[in-house]
Amino acid sequence: MGILRFSYRSDILSLSTNITICYPTGYMTTEMGFEDPLLKRNGKRPYVPGMKFQTVYLLHGGGEDDTTPYRYTKLEQYAEENMVMLVSPSVNDSFYMNTKYGFKYFDYLTQELPLVVKSLFAAATERENTFLVGLAMGGNGALGLGLMRPDLYSAVVDLSGGIGVTLDREEYKHSLNIEFTRVRDTLLGEDEFIGSEHDLLTFAEKNIAEKIDLPKYFIGVGEKDFIRDRVYKDYLALKNLGYDVYFEEGQGMKHDYGFWDKYLEKVLSNWLPLKREPIYGDR
Amino acid sequence: MGILRFSYRSDILSLSTNITICYPTGYMTTEMGFEDPLLKRNGKRPYVPGMKFQTVYLLHGGGEDDTTPYRYTKLEQYAEENMVMLVSPSVNDSFYMNTKYGFKYFDYLTQELPLVVKSLFAAATERENTFLVGLAMGGNGALGLGLMRPDLYSAVVDLSGGIGVTLDREEYKHSLNIEFTRVRDTLLGEDEFIGSEHDLLTFAEKNIAEKIDLPKYFIGVGEKDFIRDRVYKDYLALKNLGYDVYFEEGQGMKHDYGFWDKYLEKVLSNWLPLKREPIYGDR
Amino acid sequence: MGILRFSYRSDILSLSTNITICYPTGYMTTEMGFEDPLLKRNGKRPYVPGMKFQTVYLLHGGGEDDTTPYRYTKLEQYAEENMVMLVSPSVNDSFYMNTKYGFKYFDYLTQELPLVVKSLFAAATERENTFLVGLAMGGNGALGLGLMRPDLYSAVVDLSGGIGVTLDREEYKHSLNIEFTRVRDTLLGEDEFIGSEHDLLTFAEKNIAEKIDLPKYFIGVGEKDFIRDRVYKDYLALKNLGYDVYFEEGQGMKHDYGFWDKYLEKVLSNWLPLKREPIYGDR
Amino acid sequence: MGILRFSYRSDILSLSTNITICYPTGYMTTEMGFEDPLLKRNGKRPYVPGMKFQTVYLLHGGGEDDTTPYRYTKLEQYAEENMVMLVSPSVNDSFYMNTKYGFKYFDYLTQELPLVVKSLFAAATERENTFLVGLAMGGNGALGLGLMRPDLYSAVVDLSGGIGVTLDREEYKHSLNIEFTRVRDTLLGEDEFIGSEHDLLTFAEKNIAEKIDLPKYFIGVGEKDFIRDRVYKDYLALKNLGYDVYFEEGQGMKHDYGFWDKYLEKVLSNWLPLKREPIYGDR
Repeated sequence: MGILRFSYRSDILSLSTNITICYPTGYMTTEMGFEDPLLKRNGKRPYVPGMKFQTVYLLHGGGEDDTTPYRYTKLEQYAEENMVMLVSPSVNDSFYMNTKYGFKYFDYLTQELPLVVKSLFAAATERENTFLVGLAMGGNGALGLGLMRPDLYSAVVDLSGGIGVTLDREEYKHSLNIEFTRVRDTLLGEDEFIGSEHDLLTFAEKNIAEKIDLPKYFIGVGEKDFIRDRVYKDYLALKNLGYDVYFEEGQGMKHDYGFWDKYLEKVLSNWLPLKREPIYGDR
Repeated sequence: MGILRFSYRSDILSLSTNITICYPTGYMTTEMGFEDPLLKRNGKRPYVPGMKFQTVYLLHGGGEDDTTPYRYTKLEQYAEENMVMLVSPSVNDSFYMNTKYGFKYFDYLTQELPLVVKSLFAAATERENTFLVGLAMGGNGALGLGLMRPDLYSAVVDLSGGIGVTLDREEYKHSLNIEFTRVRDTLLGEDEFIGSEHDLLTFAEKNIAEKIDLPKYFIGVGEKDFIRDRVYKDYLALKNLGYDVYFEEGQGMKHDYGFWDKYLEKVLSNWLPLKREPIYGDR
Repeated sequence: MGILRFSYRSDILSLSTNITICYPTGYMTTEMGFEDPLLKRNGKRPYVPGMKFQTVYLLHGGGEDDTTPYRYTKLEQYAEENMVMLVSPSVNDSFYMNTKYGFKYFDYLTQELPLVVKSLFAAATERENTFLVGLAMGGNGALGLGLMRPDLYSAVVDLSGGIGVTLDREEYKHSLNIEFTRVRDTLLGEDEFIGSEHDLLTFAEKNIAEKIDLPKYFIGVGEKDFIRDRVYKDYLALKNLGYDVYFEEGQGMKHDYGFWDKYLEKVLSNWLPLKREPIYGDR
Repeated sequence: MGILRFSYRSDILSLSTNITICYPTGYMTTEMGFEDPLLKRNGKRPYVPGMKFQTVYLLHGGGEDDTTPYRYTKLEQYAEENMVMLVSPSVNDSFYMNTKYGFKYFDYLTQELPLVVKSLFAAATERENTFLVGLAMGGNGALGLGLMRPDLYSAVVDLSGGIGVTLDREEYKHSLNIEFTRVRDTLLGEDEFIGSEHDLLTFAEKNIAEKIDLPKYFIGVGEKDFIRDRVYKDYLALKNLGYDVYFEEGQGMKHDYGFWDKYLEKVLSNWLPLKREPIYGDR
């Protein structure tokens, strides 16, 4: 696998930030002279300037950064086996939203990040080749970005979305009042969130009302995860609104990397409708 | 500036290796809605998928790795001001050649590295947009790669090329016998190097005899560099063969990062015929 | 030079964070058998388990992270020549203070960072061996930490402290109202800051009133820096209170890495009363 | 977990090199005021300047570098759970030996690396707190270092030691003649290796003859590993010489990270006689 950490100053954030990117180079070869670049040699595919990869934006959890999921799972291997590129931004516990205190992470993630990644790296440009997966706080992030910008992703996966934005307004209010004050320091308060950019239900209903072309949604959670019921409520809310949404519970599993390691493999190998090939362009 | 260190397993080397890459992101903006992407906004240029950068392959010195020149100079700033992308491989004191002990660094640097970089990053693909610069051991490397593969680079810069391959056969032999045995452990010996892949004079003469289209060559060295005379001999050898070669001596300067910092700025800002613009493709 | 980037989850921040650390290994040797470890061999000093280094906490500017100053200056070289260890935290534009939105950077920087660094790395533990230097936003940070916790540092350097905490209450109020809203999103407002943890004047006066043992303060700024007058006001405020404070203006210099590169060298080589030796303990 | 990659220039190698180091910070806390630093608070242990960690030197496989095992396993988590520090050097396919072509990796690994790590990081200094574990090429490396320098390690683990140094001279000769020429480019040839620094049998016999205090040895291999029989021969050779050596076969397992991930957990959690506590010194 090829891995890198890109450090640059984001325009929208007005801040130096890090992005971890993986390329599935372990299944690629520099041996040239293929008669047909689309053929594999020893199971490997050639490097060709102009090639692109299907891209999975992978969102880390609370308290973590862009490197954490790679260090606690075998994610690189799963990406390699499925010939996708992974892109992980680092979001400083912003819940993947524009924060009340002025850091525009939602704008960064939906406007700047894809533009920078598609301009500087070999990421596919089309929605059909772009996927969004998050775990824990990143699960809520994936759900949020995927409901607010359904035009960007062809599938969205929320693994054990913990705290942060949600379709369930009661749960949202509850999370504003827990001991961990980061939620209420970041997201809009009880009196102002309904209908706001932090209220997923509004977006979810609008998507249906306007008959927007929607990505496929997937939600997974450990059966014994303390946050299991809340995640299930997000699933129910989507289902009741008529969304195409799949739900799966990991038997006996909890809110930890045991679950995420197992389910990230499942997501990349089974859930997402990936090509599992590089994109070599018109030929 | 955007900087990254890419870690992947090279096919040709059969080894995990690192590549440091810089993008001039400090002079770029994600503000969209330019009427014409070729216009600058506040002196900045837009990100556009498909864009490419002119590329300078920058070769580190002996005992160093891909990160060293970036840490001891203001190189990122110079690259940014000249809107070029920098690419630095790491070569483990191989003198940028295929070593006697079987690590094919020359093949890696001339076959694999450009292919991988052009496939995975936004590096321009044409020779006219590709430049080669090296310092100390990397100066010899640049001279060597630039004479053995003149088809790859439109200009080649050797800054204080120290020990390693050279056009001067007596100097080559001498370096086989110095106390620092790494040269003779790596390069072909006195009895076998003439006419071999480690003998630059053979390539330099052949290029002229075959009227190959040649890059422009530049050689710089500190006036007080202990290796000054040897670098000058490489200059004279090229000049006598009829090469288009420029020579400049840094008054009072030595074989250290004082010279390299000053001359890397000069190379990027003055010597190289750069566009100092991204390449946005047909438009 | 030896350089590393340490990534770990901070207790106080409840967040993964990065710390860049440099060791002056270029002037050290592993050659053993010194009769006296305090002797130098070829100008180099030995590695000895239990050894410590004088430590400079180096604070980056606004929009930057822990890596930026190392990439835009020759800082590693200056540290090496002065045999000090450098430690740079990353603070996400918090102005080095506990932010209104709940990220306790001041607590992290003054309680956790030194404890973690002294426990996991070879940093000297005593105040007399601990120094604080910041540039731009980090200059204000250095001034702030150095006034609020004078017991931690033996000298404090503010280079072109730009916006953030200051001794001048009018300037503080002014910065709350500029177009760049990050200050007022982060620091306490006009009605509440006086006497608060964001009001340096209160600390500065209290230190004098209580006859606290104070570090030496140094303030530098470019003559043509747009923020020059404000930095000078901080100098005057300290001087008027009776602080031991040195001020120097860089003739013709501005608010950029031209000034910081030159003055970081000056700070490490001339201003700070460094031992320029490792600390080998009782022997 | 706290992770870092240290980049410095090695004296003995005369080369810039990388070392990956992990600290088990996830089970540590900066909460102060413990009555007794040896008590745990919420299962966590305090940072205390002067503290040390038991250290596992973890050796990567062929074609890999210091980062690879961390990226393809859950190693950080296993280290954290067992409160040990991990140290991984990068060895450029040298088989962890002094190479014929002059790179003194054995000297680096046994003389410089421990000295540098104990001087700059919180690694325990005593043999009883130092362990050596390697996988694939690193398995042979661990076996080699552990037989040639039994004074350095209190336990040595070889997981699927592939090619490189071995106790079996016929296997050694065989590996000199395989298609992958790196072995014979690096290690001494058929006519010269017996009794040399690349001949483990000589060291193994000498240790017994001289009644050296020996570490405990552990050897593990996948039942279906193509190299299984060769690894078993190393086990038998040690056993026949009277070594205290444990052997275990992973049922149905092969020469890949499936085996190494599972067995690295087993090694850290079960095989090695670890304290699973930091070392807080005399108290």
